[in-house]
Amino acid sequence: MTDPAVPGRSRGPASDAGSPEVASVLIVGAGLLGASIGLGLRNLGVETWLRDASPTAEAVGEDIGAGLSERAWGARMAEPQLVVVASPPDVTVELVAAALTEFPHTVVTDVASVKGSILRGLEEAGADLSRYVGSHPMAGREKSGPVAARGELFTSMPWVLCSSEHTAPSTRRLVKGLAIELGATVTEMPAEEHDDTVALISHLPQVMSSLLASRLQDTPLHRLSLAGQGLRDTTRIAASDPGLWVQILTANAGAIVPALHGVREDLERLIETMEAPTAPGSRLDVAQLIAEGNAGQARIPGKHGGAPKAFAQLTVLVDDRPGTIAHLLTFIGEIGINLEDLRLDHSPGQPVGLAEVSVEPNRRDELVEALTTNGWKVVQ
Amino acid sequence: MTDPAVPGRSRGPASDAGSPEVASVLIVGAGLLGASIGLGLRNLGVETWLRDASPTAEAVGEDIGAGLSERAWGARMAEPQLVVVASPPDVTVELVAAALTEFPHTVVTDVASVKGSILRGLEEAGADLSRYVGSHPMAGREKSGPVAARGELFTSMPWVLCSSEHTAPSTRRLVKGLAIELGATVTEMPAEEHDDTVALISHLPQVMSSLLASRLQDTPLHRLSLAGQGLRDTTRIAASDPGLWVQILTANAGAIVPALHGVREDLERLIETMEAPTAPGSRLDVAQLIAEGNAGQARIPGKHGGAPKAFAQLTVLVDDRPGTIAHLLTFIGEIGINLEDLRLDHSPGQPVGLAEVSVEPNRRDELVEALTTNGWKVVQ
Repeated sequence: MTDPAVPGRSRGPASDAGSPEVASVLIVGAGLLGASIGLGLRNLGVETWLRDASPTAEAVGEDIGAGLSERAWGARMAEPQLVVVASPPDVTVELVAAALTEFPHTVVTDVASVKGSILRGLEEAGADLSRYVGSHPMAGREKSGPVAARGELFTSMPWVLCSSEHTAPSTRRLVKGLAIELGATVTEMPAEEHDDTVALISHLPQVMSSLLASRLQDTPLHRLSLAGQGLRDTTRIAASDPGLWVQILTANAGAIVPALHGVREDLERLIETMEAPTAPGSRLDVAQLIAEGNAGQARIPGKHGGAPKAFAQLTVLVDDRPGTIAHLLTFIGEIGINLEDLRLDHSPGQPVGLAEVSVEPNRRDELVEALTTNGWKVVQ
Repeated sequence: MTDPAVPGRSRGPASDAGSPEVASVLIVGAGLLGASIGLGLRNLGVETWLRDASPTAEAVGEDIGAGLSERAWGARMAEPQLVVVASPPDVTVELVAAALTEFPHTVVTDVASVKGSILRGLEEAGADLSRYVGSHPMAGREKSGPVAARGELFTSMPWVLCSSEHTAPSTRRLVKGLAIELGATVTEMPAEEHDDTVALISHLPQVMSSLLASRLQDTPLHRLSLAGQGLRDTTRIAASDPGLWVQILTANAGAIVPALHGVREDLERLIETMEAPTAPGSRLDVAQLIAEGNAGQARIPGKHGGAPKAFAQLTVLVDDRPGTIAHLLTFIGEIGINLEDLRLDHSPGQPVGLAEVSVEPNRRDELVEALTTNGWKVVQ
C-alpha cells in the first residue's frame, strides 16, 4: 500500500534520472489535465499558479488545491521556470506562443494529444522553439473538468515527449523531469510518429466506438437489455466529450484519414461479400477479416507494458453482496497468489455475478483446488 | 456465497415458474455451449447423453462430467424427452431435422446464435415444427470447446426463446423450463426480431472490433506499448474464433448488412469531412458523430439489466502485490458498502495500478473519508 502524499517534496525518480528539479510552474488551463498536473506538483511542494479563460475553472482549480489562482490573488508569477499549456487543443498554439513571448526565459510545454499541427503552427508564428517541447501525457479519462482531476492521474502512465530539431537540450530535460516527477513513464519520439501512433491506438478506436454506438440510437430498450459485455466494452469510450474530440480529430486528420481509408476498404469488401453470402470465396473473405482482427489484437501489449502475456483465467460465481468479492480476493491473497487481472461479469436481471480472475498459469490448479475445497463455486 | 453444486436435484425457479421438469436430455455437439448445458443438467441430476461428430470432443465431454458418451457406452437413449442441438451453426438445420425424425415424440431445440435462417431451413426440409423451438443462450465466451465449459455459464444470463407459429405450447414450456433450470433469464421474441437484435448488439460490435484490430497488424510494438484501456476494451472481442464467426455473420447477413450500410454512410461522411477539415460545417459534422455515439452508448442498460444507472466512482492507488486489491475490497465490505463495479487500470511499465471502484452515489463521501483516514490513497 502506498503512503498518503507526504507534505513537502519527496523526489526519488527525478533525481535518479539526473533531471533538473522543477521549482515554479504556471499552468494555463485548469481542466482535467491542468488541474491534475497542479495537484501532482503541489503534492511535491512545487510553487504552482493557475490561469484559465474561465474564472470558475480557475477558482475551482485553486479550491481543489491545484495551484494559486492568478485572478484570486491579483498577481502573476514574474518568470516561472516552466509554463504548462493544458488548454483545449484549438487554442494551444496561440497560448504557447503567447507564453513564450510573455516570459522570455521560460520553458513552455503543452499537453495536447496531437503534436504535429501545434509544432507547425508555432513555426509559422515564428515562436522561439528552443524553449518549447510538446508533450502528451496519455492519461485521459471519460470525465473532464477540474473536479475530475487527481494528482496521481499520471502514475505509471506513458508520457510522450516530442522534441523537435529546435528544442534546446535543457528544455527537453526540464519537461522530462516534470513527467518523471509526476510518476509517468517517459517515451520520446518525433511529433509525426506520435501523431501516427495516436491516430491508430487512440483516435481510430474512438471513431469506431462512436460509429458503433451511434447505430444504437433507435434500438428499443428491451432489445438493448440483451446486451453483453462485448457491446459494453466496445462502446465504453463512445461516451467521450464531443467538444474535445472534434478538436483532436480535426487536428490529427492527416494521420487518421489513411487509417479510415483502410477501414473503409475492409468494410466495402465485407459488405460486398455479405450481400452475396453464397458466392465462391465469400466465407473465406469473412473469415479473413476476423483472422486479421485476431492478429492485430494479439499484438497489443498486456499489463505492465510487456509483450502480451497469457495469464490463466478461472471464473468464480459470486453473490452481489457487500464483501463477497473482497472475501474472494482476500482468500486468493492469503494463498500468496497475485491477482493479475479481474473482470466482473455484469448480470442482467439477477443479483449474481461472475468474477473472472487472471493468475500466473502455474498457480491456476492450486488456486482452483483451494477455492473448491473452501466452498467457492469455481465455474471451469 | 453460493454452496458448491449439491448432488441430486434441487429445483427452485423451474418449479416456481410452473415449467415441466426436464428428465432426460441428449446433447448433440459437445462444444462450449453443449458441454456447459450438460454440466448444468448433471448438477441437477438430469440423465444426460452426449453425441458429437468428433469422438474426442464426445470423450472429453464425458470426462468433464457433461454427460454420458454414446460412443463410449455403445448405447443411445431410446427416446429422450429433449434433444439440444449445440452444433456449429452451419450444420444445425440438418441435425435438428435428423433429431426430429430419429425421435418422433421428442422436443428439439438448438442454441445457435442466429435463428431465422434455421427456422426457414427446417420449414424447407418439411420438419415437424410443433416439436421444435429455437433458443439462444447469450452466454458465449472468447474461448471455445468443451474444456472451457462450465455448468454455471448461463447463470443470470439472457436466454432468448423464439417460438414460431408452429411451435406447440408444450414444446415452448419444456425448453423454457430448461433455460430456467440452468439459471438463465428467459426472453421471448420472434426469430426475426432476435436476429435484428443480435445483429446490432453482438454481430456489429464483433465486426467493428475486428475492423479496428486488423489495422494494428503492422503497427510497431513500441508504438502499441502506448496503448491504453480504450484500445484494449474496443478490441477485446477481436480475439474471437474466425471459424465460428464466419458462420454467424454469413447466417445473419440479411440483418447485419443494413447496419453495415449505416456505418459506411457515417464513415463516408466522416472521411469526406476530415479530408477538408477547414470546410464550413466540417467541425459540426465530426462533433455530431461523437454526439450520436454518446446518445447510443447512453441507451445501453447497466448492471442488473436495469436502465443505465449512474454510480459514483472513486479511484484508489494500489500496489500490484498479492492481496492489495483484496485488502481494499475487504475494507469496503466491512463498512457495509456494496461494490457495484470494479475496474483495474493496467499500468504499462510499472507495478502500480489504479482501482476504480463504483458505489451507490450516496455512499461515496463516507467511503472516501473512511479510506483516506485509513491510509489509502484515494485519487479524486
